[in-house]
Parts: sequence; structure tokens; C-alpha cells
Amino acid sequence: MDLEKLIRDIPGFPKEGIVFKDITTLLMDKDGFKQTLEELYNLASGKGITKVVGIESRGFIFGGALAEKLDTGFVPVRKPGKLPYKKISESYELEYGTDTIEIHEDAINPGDKVLLHDDLLATGGTMEAACKLIEKLGGEVVQISFLIELTFLKGRNRLEKYDVHSLINYDSE
Amino acid sequence: MDLEKLIRDIPGFPKEGIVFKDITTLLMDKDGFKQTLEELYNLASGKGITKVVGIESRGFIFGGALAEKLDTGFVPVRKPGKLPYKKISESYELEYGTDTIEIHEDAINPGDKVLLHDDLLATGGTMEAACKLIEKLGGEVVQISFLIELTFLKGRNRLEKYDVHSLINYDSE
Repeated sequence: MDLEKLIRDIPGFPKEGIVFKDITTLLMDKDGFKQTLEELYNLASGKGITKVVGIESRGFIFGGALAEKLDTGFVPVRKPGKLPYKKISESYELEYGTDTIEIHEDAINPGDKVLLHDDLLATGGTMEAACKLIEKLGGEVVQISFLIELTFLKGRNRLEKYDVHSLINYDSE
Repeated sequence: MDLEKLIRDIPGFPKEGIVFKDITTLLMDKDGFKQTLEELYNLASGKGITKVVGIESRGFIFGGALAEKLDTGFVPVRKPGKLPYKKISESYELEYGTDTIEIHEDAINPGDKVLLHDDLLATGGTMEAACKLIEKLGGEVVQISFLIELTFLKGRNRLEKYDVHSLINYDSE
């Protein structure tokens, strides 16, 4: 199945000039859901991964399922104020202003081999910050996977030292 | 394994007087994660479920994994402004003020047999609103599952016409 056919374009969301890639049409298709997970799993299996880290909140959907299939624990990276225990944070630049993500300081053990997962690679700022969080805690980023990559935004350049995979690529809006 | 032992109490989060039940210690334990998913799956299998609906955002973690194991599609119920396509919404009362959740109007087909999942049953307001969303779209709520139930808050009373299950129960704070 061509997974790209299950993605819905939403022009003008969240604001004028943006064409949003809506994954809910893929998620609700049981064959599309299964195939997506299988492809993400195949990319990551056999690499000795010990933790799957999902980025809030769409990264939780396949992230949890990947943890189960890879037989690892799952760790959420969240927006500020959501995690209740001791945590570390990392800020990154947006077009206007900055944003911050957090992780519990006991979520990664030194030596953990980590798969980072999110639904979308755009400018790469969030994922670059997530990698820093993992490494601050002594983990190794073994793989990064995305459902969708907006290649024209060149987010991959910020992640060039990592093994980065995306299932669906868009070369232009 | 006693799953309750993997839950961490955080007194005073998110505010004074609340003891927050932190599930991240369970999520990051690979055996705890696997057992939780297995128990949730066993509750739901054989019931003809056609869609798993997860509530933003911790409900996405096991919700996605359940969709894969049950061989169904996955549907997110989200906070306002997150879903990009045509949607319906439902508001519910909080201690102070109201809150709102949304679902895409094409996410559920008439006749869909739905498993609703979230991590925590407290007062039940969010889940009651989610049930209304499913039913407005013509779906049938076949089961509701939670990882944790705070039984002393009596949220189950608001869901009494449904088949409600929780893996871990707390009778008091």
C-alpha cells in the first residue's frame, strides 16, 4: 500500500500559507496503521534498542506500539509542566520565539540505546533538542524515525550525525 | 508482576494537596509495559472492536499499541485547536470552569464498535464527553479501559451504562 495516499492535505492549517499533513486518515485505516508500524519496526529491529522515546503528542501513538514490538520500555518527551518528577529541559528556536521540551532525569540510563520517534520532521528543532536530552542522560541515539519528512525544510541537516529514517517524503508543499 | 508497584506517587503535583500517580516509571519498565498492554488487550479481544480511540495525550501511548494488537484503526480525541479537519466538540465541567475535547467528524463510521482508552479515571468528565462524541458520530462504545482508577472520586458513576475496566485501583489518596 502507498502510505502517502492515506495522508490528507489541509491547506491553511494551522495558519495561512501552510499545507498541513493530516495523519489521522492513515491512523484510522487499520491496514495503513499496521503497515506503518511494521515498516517502522523493521527499520529498528536488530539494533539492540533498549528504550523507545516518543515526542509529545503524536509521537506517542506509534512510539508506544514500537516499544511493545521491540520489547523495550517507553519514555515520553513532553512539553513544559507536564512531567511530574525531576527533569531536565532543552530549549530550541522557532521562527518566532523559542520552545522547550523536557524528560525525566531517571528515564534514560547511561548506555541505553535509544530509538527516538515522532510523526513529522519539519525544521528538526524539536528532534535536535530531544537528542541533546538523551545524550545529557548518557543514552546513545541509535535511530531516529519519522512517519513524514518535509524534505524541503532541510531538518535532516540538523540531525546529520544520526541514523534518520522517514516513511513518507514531501519535496515541496 | 504487581503493576501498582511500578507507579510513582508525586505529592503536591500539579498542585498542593494532590498526590499525582506517575505512570512513567511503569512505561519505562519493559516488562511492566508489556504486561500492561497484554492485560488491556485481553480485556478487549474477541469483542468485535473496529476502532480504538485514545484520549490526548497519555491515552495515545497504549491506545496506538492496542489498535495494532486488535487489528483496528486508531482515532485521537484531542484538545481544542489540534485537529486540522472538520470536527465536533464536547465540553464538560471541571472543578473551576469547563474544558473541551474534539474528534474529526469522519473518524468514526456509523456502526463502528469502539474501545475508548485513557490512562486515568478521576472524575470521569473527560471520558463521559468522549463517549458522547463517539455516539454523536453513530459509533457504539463497546468498552472503556483505563490504566488507573481513583475510585474515591467516583468517576465510574458517570460511565455506569458502559463496560468500564481499570488495571490499578486506588481507594484513597
